[in-house]
Amino acid sequence: MEFKFKPIGIVHSPFRQKEDIPRDKNKTSEGFKDIEGCLEIFPEFEAGLNDIDGYSHLFVLFVFHEAHRKSLIAHPPHDGQPRGIFATRSPHRPNPLGLSIVRLLQREGRFLQVGELDMIEGTPILDIKPYTPRDLKPEAHFGWLEKYLT
Amino acid sequence: MEFKFKPIGIVHSPFRQKEDIPRDKNKTSEGFKDIEGCLEIFPEFEAGLNDIDGYSHLFVLFVFHEAHRKSLIAHPPHDGQPRGIFATRSPHRPNPLGLSIVRLLQREGRFLQVGELDMIEGTPILDIKPYTPRDLKPEAHFGWLEKYLT
Repeated sequence: MEFKFKPIGIVHSPFRQKEDIPRDKNKTSEGFKDIEGCLEIFPEFEAGLNDIDGYSHLFVLFVFHEAHRKSLIAHPPHDGQPRGIFATRSPHRPNPLGLSIVRLLQREGRFLQVGELDMIEGTPILDIKPYTPRDLKPEAHFGWLEKYLT
Repeated sequence: MEFKFKPIGIVHSPFRQKEDIPRDKNKTSEGFKDIEGCLEIFPEFEAGLNDIDGYSHLFVLFVFHEAHRKSLIAHPPHDGQPRGIFATRSPHRPNPLGLSIVRLLQREGRFLQVGELDMIEGTPILDIKPYTPRDLKPEAHFGWLEKYLT
């Protein structure tokens, strides 16, 4: 069984390639706070952006297009220990699907200016979804990551 | 350009088909609070579940396999008004990718018992990611949805 998806848009980012993102940025909640960029949605999907204004945060589902190996084990930057891939956000996953939350700054037609961006230039976007109250889990706890929280 | 993904697992749910989910359940944060089920991860991916214990919430990226039309406009249950698809969580999207957050109750080998489940039986799972502190956006606001929050 196989599922096929085509990009609805592309990311424009100050990070030109994956080596431009210091790994330590992923260790804190603030690492990407000041990074701004643009989500370009292709013209045939522009009508799908109606009513997106007023949402402060958007989920972006994207392809880790520069992830060229798949692994079940990752070594996150926090402590270098091996961790099961599904307990991490590493790009090197069985399906190289990424999930980021960006801050929506402004919509100009089919271009979304966004903040808190952690993707690289040219990242293929598969979907955009609004961040809703159901996505807020203030009671959450965080497994192995807990001891590295500041 | 096209990207292909294969399921890493499958959802087991008390909802046998999509008609079993009352649309009104999607209108509140509590609608799926008491729904429990199981994420079955296929044997070849079981090692990827290491270290997942201790996370209270998981993102599940899945395929809306019962969504048989694609639209740029949805009519969410809140007010029946037409909304751009990317301002909703409707299944009838250009790429029928779903995103849910479930509560991890227990891991038993390659089976994850979960709560707050809103997917139907047989849903193909493409990825599982931990919900981390970076995903908490207490300052978020919610566009057109705001006036329907209780």
